[in-house]
Amino acid sequence: MNKVSFVQLSPSDNVVVAISELAPGHILEVGGESVATVNRIPAGHKVAVRAIKQGEAVYKFGSQIGSATADIAAGEHVHSHNLQHKHDVITEVPSTDPPAAPAKLERTFEGYVRPSGRVGTRNYIAVISTVNCSASVSQFVARRFEGDALADYPNVDGVFAVTHETGCGMGYATLRHEMLSRVLVGAARHPNVAACVLIGLGCEQGSMGYLFEKHGIVPLHAPDGEKLTRDKGDAIPVLTMQDEGGTRKTIERAVQIVKDLLPVVNANRRETVSASELSVGLECGGSDGYSGITANPAVGCAADRIVASGGTAMLAETSEIYGAEHLLVQRSRSPEVALALIERIEWWKEYVGMFGLELDNNPSVGNKAGGLTTIAEKSLGAVAKAGSTALEAVYQYAEQVHQRGLVVMDTPGFDPASVTGMVAGGANMILFTTGRGSCFGCKPTPSIKIATNTAMYDRMIEDMDLNAGTVVEGSTVDQVGEEIYNKILAVASGEKTKSELAGIGDYEFIPWTVGPTL
Amino acid sequence: MNKVSFVQLSPSDNVVVAISELAPGHILEVGGESVATVNRIPAGHKVAVRAIKQGEAVYKFGSQIGSATADIAAGEHVHSHNLQHKHDVITEVPSTDPPAAPAKLERTFEGYVRPSGRVGTRNYIAVISTVNCSASVSQFVARRFEGDALADYPNVDGVFAVTHETGCGMGYATLRHEMLSRVLVGAARHPNVAACVLIGLGCEQGSMGYLFEKHGIVPLHAPDGEKLTRDKGDAIPVLTMQDEGGTRKTIERAVQIVKDLLPVVNANRRETVSASELSVGLECGGSDGYSGITANPAVGCAADRIVASGGTAMLAETSEIYGAEHLLVQRSRSPEVALALIERIEWWKEYVGMFGLELDNNPSVGNKAGGLTTIAEKSLGAVAKAGSTALEAVYQYAEQVHQRGLVVMDTPGFDPASVTGMVAGGANMILFTTGRGSCFGCKPTPSIKIATNTAMYDRMIEDMDLNAGTVVEGSTVDQVGEEIYNKILAVASGEKTKSELAGIGDYEFIPWTVGPTL
Ligand SMILES: [Ca+2]
Ligand SMILES: [Ca+2]
Ligand SMILES: [Ca+2]
Ligand SMILES: [Ca+2]
Ligand SMILES: [Ca+2]
Repeated sequence: MNKVSFVQLSPSDNVVVAISELAPGHILEVGGESVATVNRIPAGHKVAVRAIKQGEAVYKFGSQIGSATADIAAGEHVHSHNLQHKHDVITEVPSTDPPAAPAKLERTFEGYVRPSGRVGTRNYIAVISTVNCSASVSQFVARRFEGDALADYPNVDGVFAVTHETGCGMGYATLRHEMLSRVLVGAARHPNVAACVLIGLGCEQGSMGYLFEKHGIVPLHAPDGEKLTRDKGDAIPVLTMQDEGGTRKTIERAVQIVKDLLPVVNANRRETVSASELSVGLECGGSDGYSGITANPAVGCAADRIVASGGTAMLAETSEIYGAEHLLVQRSRSPEVALALIERIEWWKEYVGMFGLELDNNPSVGNKAGGLTTIAEKSLGAVAKAGSTALEAVYQYAEQVHQRGLVVMDTPGFDPASVTGMVAGGANMILFTTGRGSCFGCKPTPSIKIATNTAMYDRMIEDMDLNAGTVVEGSTVDQVGEEIYNKILAVASGEKTKSELAGIGDYEFIPWTVGPTL
Repeated sequence: MNKVSFVQLSPSDNVVVAISELAPGHILEVGGESVATVNRIPAGHKVAVRAIKQGEAVYKFGSQIGSATADIAAGEHVHSHNLQHKHDVITEVPSTDPPAAPAKLERTFEGYVRPSGRVGTRNYIAVISTVNCSASVSQFVARRFEGDALADYPNVDGVFAVTHETGCGMGYATLRHEMLSRVLVGAARHPNVAACVLIGLGCEQGSMGYLFEKHGIVPLHAPDGEKLTRDKGDAIPVLTMQDEGGTRKTIERAVQIVKDLLPVVNANRRETVSASELSVGLECGGSDGYSGITANPAVGCAADRIVASGGTAMLAETSEIYGAEHLLVQRSRSPEVALALIERIEWWKEYVGMFGLELDNNPSVGNKAGGLTTIAEKSLGAVAKAGSTALEAVYQYAEQVHQRGLVVMDTPGFDPASVTGMVAGGANMILFTTGRGSCFGCKPTPSIKIATNTAMYDRMIEDMDLNAGTVVEGSTVDQVGEEIYNKILAVASGEKTKSELAGIGDYEFIPWTVGPTL
């Protein structure tokens, strides 16, 4: 494909973005009309495609990114000299204006229907460590099932360990404890996890007990020789190293439990299910100047298709939503949903403020040089992943997500902690956009990595699943969105992603922690 | 050995601790005198061995744990009804009273003398991940050197990966960033690490650059084929996945670098060095009622021997020092050292206060039932690990420790985060006491695990290196201290600990993080 000279992110926009530097007099063909540039337009900067009067709204991504501070002629450069935006903190939401539901899409994929009714895209056995003190043991158990060990169990995607750096040295039932517990329970009950075993040390501060008491995990302490499987209702085999008599004995016993589980899990079969069973987490990591104009808007088009299919799309990374939250407020299903989002933003401001930091998404000097003018414009580049449908619900970190449609989960922007929250919430697919080139993967959920630019895609092709850089070479964002959506259905049905083929995902399951290590 | 009925923790104490319940009239032979118990004394509780007048100090661990609130007869039960302690917050330290230096010990071990002059007890190659985004790659590199891969390099203890859950999503040069950087630099320069390679993703928030700029790491970007070794001064080979073109290419290149390093590192030889080259971190994990009367005081005796040898003993776990800090203040080399400790305690109070928590080491209901009366007594059980020498310096988390003698490093009580700080500071040996039975290990430093009680020692003997439970069976704490000290010298010279034999230590290197994930 040939490079195009500009991209219009939404047909309703009155500005377009120059892909390469445009000389004065360059002809832009937009919506059947020709506009000649008035000034030199640097790459990544905006140019008006219609006359915009002083005080009139400037639209990009189909959203208002600010107001004109002077009359702007068609073809004129739009930037800090003639565009500004006041980021108002919303405190009251009398009403919202959710968009109409998109036309229904009827698509299917081949998934694992679990007894809970949820559908997995993978078929794993998880060895879940409740505390760091059992992390090595849990990893050693999983590693006994590498290589040829699963040759007789072709339907099992793997045995993996969920380990982390915490689980003790924290107040009982504090936010930190509760967040970790949600993550561990989310792993145990994940639709991609057909069976699991929990391993603890024994003396950690109630980590195990809290899972039983507050999160309804039913422990299965089986007598020797008895098979431990999901057949026994929801009960989960539980071991502690202190009861078992140390590392080696715990490993041997857990390995035996997994061996007993293998034939049961191997008997699971994929079946044709509606695409409404997709629960897709949206993540951006290592962004660049193209993220907001290629991969993120294309993911937004895919997110709209997921919602049109009846599935769930999860926007996360609250600290990066800040600045564009008013648009999600407007799109919220109800004032209550909008207020839940605002409450999370306010929590973040207070939380980072405790450490003398600010939630500040004002474009940096580099951003401004690259053509981003306002905070709304910058954040919209991230929020573009959420497409255009109504916001149906807002979840706390790692809460179980049951709502269909577009939802927000409160997570940090830090990729592994953010994705871990969405996976714990039940995400059976991750869309991960990257400009600089992240090699992220996260078991047990496949992560489709989408490059924002062709140069990086070519350089890191062993780690990239799709190239959205084609948007600046003539594809529309909608075409790339369709490509992403089809890839989701293929991967959900069993096609391996690049990070799965590389074996990534054992060190990227990272519970977000808030509060002190004691 | 036969069970003894009580233990006196210091010859100057006016109380002893009952090991089992003592009936009234039970004869205690203490310092050549016989004392008959007046009341029933529950196990773990204190009994006076001399008359103590109202207002007089009560001594345990050789330290004042409070004052008598009534006249106490020899043989009488000492607890909340006749003992109290007011925990005063110290704000001014006009003078201190450091004890005289212990008589010099002249011992040696067989260690690796590094070009820096520091001495290693092990000979490792480390693959250090600057950010979680390169954690999987770093682990994959290390795993290529498992099994028989090092058969030709018998002097190399192993190739291990230093990975963690952070390195991005944090403010540049914030406390969080600085603490992580100290830990990574501490690993790179550790005397047990003969050579290392640094691996990053490329776009993480200045993690790599900060190490170069603020911590003096000199990156070595070698042309293909050139050998990368420590021979080239202090320069360290550095790779980023984005420059290398993704996961596989980075792994292959790092594996080649490690292969080039192996013969160089294998050429290192142990030589006889003074025990003054010992730098020993003291840690307590999974304590029980015996921790404060068996293993911790015995470790204190070993710490005194380390100091007498001219080496360094590091007390840590600031949140567990709280309540006994006044005793360390008294023992401080100077008011400046004392004030540095107080400053850290004050920092902790403010830090946990931000989350609505308190630094509260008041004995819990369970502690009180077990015989612990005052906060000073409880904290002394932890501080007992520090022995009786003068406090020479106070370090921030993961700072490089160069001071000889007893020092404090500010760490949380959470074992892996605490030990990681001490290891980063240069600890070439860890003493780890445990009552409930922790199976902790931490590469690259051997961790000697010392059981507080014989029952657990027997049950978890595959994970325990020493049994301090013999203190309640007739050994003195000093005898066990001597046993620990001899074990340190043997392990420092190459004897493997139980956790090294079990292969533990790849998932326990955990940088302490303070401040928000963004
Ligand atoms: Ca993890
Ligand atoms: Ca900013
Ligand atoms: Ca992110
Ligand atoms: Ca680690
Ligand atoms: Ca500890």
